[in-house]
Amino acid sequence: MAIKPSISKGTRDFSPADIAKRNYLKAVLQEQFECYGFQPIATPTFEQLETLMGKYGEEGDRLIFRILNSGEKLKKANTEALSQNKLKAFADSLSEKALRYDLTVPFARYVAQHQNELVFPFRRYQIQNVWRADRPQHGRFQEFMQCDADIVGVRSSLQEIEMLRLYDSVFNTLGLHGVSLKINHRGLLAALAQAIGAPDQLIPFTVALDKLDKIGFDGVVEELLQRGFDKNVVTQLQPLLQLKGTAEEKLKQLAAILPASTQKENALTELQWIFEQLQDQPMQTVTVDLDITLARGLNYYTGMIVEVGAPKEIKMGSIGGGGRYDDLTAAFGLKDQSGIGISFGFDRIFLVMEELGLFPKEVLKTTQVLFLNTDEKGAAWALKELDALRRKGVAAEIYPAPAKFQKQLRYANGKNIPYAVIYGSQEQEQGHFVLKNMQAGSQQEYPIGTALASIL
Amino acid sequence: MAIKPSISKGTRDFSPADIAKRNYLKAVLQEQFECYGFQPIATPTFEQLETLMGKYGEEGDRLIFRILNSGEKLKKANTEALSQNKLKAFADSLSEKALRYDLTVPFARYVAQHQNELVFPFRRYQIQNVWRADRPQHGRFQEFMQCDADIVGVRSSLQEIEMLRLYDSVFNTLGLHGVSLKINHRGLLAALAQAIGAPDQLIPFTVALDKLDKIGFDGVVEELLQRGFDKNVVTQLQPLLQLKGTAEEKLKQLAAILPASTQKENALTELQWIFEQLQDQPMQTVTVDLDITLARGLNYYTGMIVEVGAPKEIKMGSIGGGGRYDDLTAAFGLKDQSGIGISFGFDRIFLVMEELGLFPKEVLKTTQVLFLNTDEKGAAWALKELDALRRKGVAAEIYPAPAKFQKQLRYANGKNIPYAVIYGSQEQEQGHFVLKNMQAGSQQEYPIGTALASIL
Repeated sequence: MAIKPSISKGTRDFSPADIAKRNYLKAVLQEQFECYGFQPIATPTFEQLETLMGKYGEEGDRLIFRILNSGEKLKKANTEALSQNKLKAFADSLSEKALRYDLTVPFARYVAQHQNELVFPFRRYQIQNVWRADRPQHGRFQEFMQCDADIVGVRSSLQEIEMLRLYDSVFNTLGLHGVSLKINHRGLLAALAQAIGAPDQLIPFTVALDKLDKIGFDGVVEELLQRGFDKNVVTQLQPLLQLKGTAEEKLKQLAAILPASTQKENALTELQWIFEQLQDQPMQTVTVDLDITLARGLNYYTGMIVEVGAPKEIKMGSIGGGGRYDDLTAAFGLKDQSGIGISFGFDRIFLVMEELGLFPKEVLKTTQVLFLNTDEKGAAWALKELDALRRKGVAAEIYPAPAKFQKQLRYANGKNIPYAVIYGSQEQEQGHFVLKNMQAGSQQEYPIGTALASIL
Repeated sequence: MAIKPSISKGTRDFSPADIAKRNYLKAVLQEQFECYGFQPIATPTFEQLETLMGKYGEEGDRLIFRILNSGEKLKKANTEALSQNKLKAFADSLSEKALRYDLTVPFARYVAQHQNELVFPFRRYQIQNVWRADRPQHGRFQEFMQCDADIVGVRSSLQEIEMLRLYDSVFNTLGLHGVSLKINHRGLLAALAQAIGAPDQLIPFTVALDKLDKIGFDGVVEELLQRGFDKNVVTQLQPLLQLKGTAEEKLKQLAAILPASTQKENALTELQWIFEQLQDQPMQTVTVDLDITLARGLNYYTGMIVEVGAPKEIKMGSIGGGGRYDDLTAAFGLKDQSGIGISFGFDRIFLVMEELGLFPKEVLKTTQVLFLNTDEKGAAWALKELDALRRKGVAAEIYPAPAKFQKQLRYANGKNIPYAVIYGSQEQEQGHFVLKNMQAGSQQEYPIGTALASIL
């Protein structure tokens, strides 16, 4: 019996037009990554379970797609765990591999594994799909593409500038203007946590702060109180989180307000240097601002962090982000490697470009010429011409059967083919062929022997 | 504790050099597919289990990677089936999705699902990974790339010619000469089965015949006898399977020897037409021959079949294949759609090209210019020049810290960067910079202000 054709929720089929646009976006990213000296790597779709587990927090672990063991291995199913409702232990007994959940952990694994073959500092980019067993929503998929650029093996603020400029170059090349970069520094957040009397509570503090956009300042205060922060000190936060002015002015105010500490000094020095650089050599299109409330959820960040906002006229969450981390590769035995990584939200950037009509029309270019199938003699002539065109790199087709012209022309229209060539019995008698411009509806005769490639 | 970094068996990490070469091969395939009017689609990494199951035979079903259900769904585990050692039923209770096993079944599902959006005959290509839980061997992976081109919705021998020429164009563009196409026709095999008195035994007959390369003629005879074929008729096979001469001569002999049937007449007419076409317009590089022993394992083929052999000097199985099929989409409710599809064995073609040294050196091109990091003043100058170069599309980098020159130059060498630029204190005093050609070892001074892009 026939199955109703359908796909798994949260996944997508991509049509030729989708792919053409995705390839364009991917090509721009690749070209810019390489222009900045990044080299591509790729890692397997599935990794060993232990490589991924425990790296993304408890919630992340639950969202990892596991691959079911096959054959005899299934006999090792821990049914006791199942009967005790210990579903994780049961799942652990059934699977040894899992699908890539992000590109960062496989990258860390790659660097540790191939450390002797790599040239450090290692600048890599990676554009691959990742999978998450998240509830699908508008714009949230179970299979989606990530694009990451990282530099590992050096701690130098030059890299921070490189990453910010890379964002600028990509969006400028795409013609996507109005993008804003918000930056902050984990050292400043640590100094803030210290200022409110909770130096050991940096992570809960940043987790709460990260929700500022969603739950507002009062919500953040409430969450901090719930987490045991002191009410008096929490209310001291407000002026710090609502600084006004240019980045330079904010940095000055922070220098004055925050209590002295090495962390604070280092963070301010780094940020000051970055903003000086940007004044020296302005960006092409993106704006860069200091946002002291920017926290970013991931715990491995240790230095500058950045988040990328879509143009204001578009309703869309962040379209990228990243930051400085230390010791990402330590979990795989390679210690003391500082690095910095940024990510481009491919699917979201795609949606923004689509909404703003930024994909060049040329990317949808398809077959250039359709030879109508007229009769045996016409087809024999067409096959030779077809071959000649293709050898010159012109995309061309012949309609597979001598159907009614209307049907054949409908095919050309359906595929957006700009030219049709007709060499039917009438044309054969008169020794010419007809070139039809499908869009204009006009047509012109050319004597047989005219090189088609020269008249398109 | 640190985990020893490693990957799952049968999977691969790809280094920057691997990716550069793979991208080149992929780009040539894409370009040629599009030149022939094929359009790209992509389907999800995992499909619903029922979409894939039962399409690849029992062996295939076992090699499909299943995704383990997550969360509460695990409670539906059929432990009774497990205790009865019914592992398939147990697995079925644990999974609803599975990884793509080939591109053909997802394509059939796609065509049936999107039939109202497509322009028929639909010419599509697809380049994506597939996964098989096969025992890994040299050249056989659990994750590998497939490249398929199909035309669905028409039965016309013109398409057979299109596919053969597509092979020719791809291998010609790659500079991969010496490739041979062997073709046959399922109708001829059916006529053969009839000739040996087993018209209903076409499939066991082709399955046995398919092993000719591996087990020799005597092995095939033995297998046919085991499958219940009559000894007298089986020995009649030998002269048929060992025809000599050109394709045209073989076709004439077959026409004379084989008993009359519609299948035989149709198959011979089609093959004759194809070989006539090839005489009219010779191929650029591939040779095409009739091989009456070619069977191909897949049961869905109904017309011409083709297999692609690597150049003789290379030890390698087939590097591609395909054929005409009917009703591939019927399993998904779309009936009577004849089609033809061919496949390029990406990983094997890659290995052949590697062995013959056919990848152009340019594909390994990396960063063009490394600015050495000399001191603060030098770096400030370099950052501006760096930016200017990149805006012109020249890939450039600055070394992240003012390390010893030797270390910085080692980095350039390690990354195959052809030029290094030095602007240290001495150069600053004298008002010039030094451009070092890393390969030649030579270097030249240029006055500050010289446009770097113009002297590379």
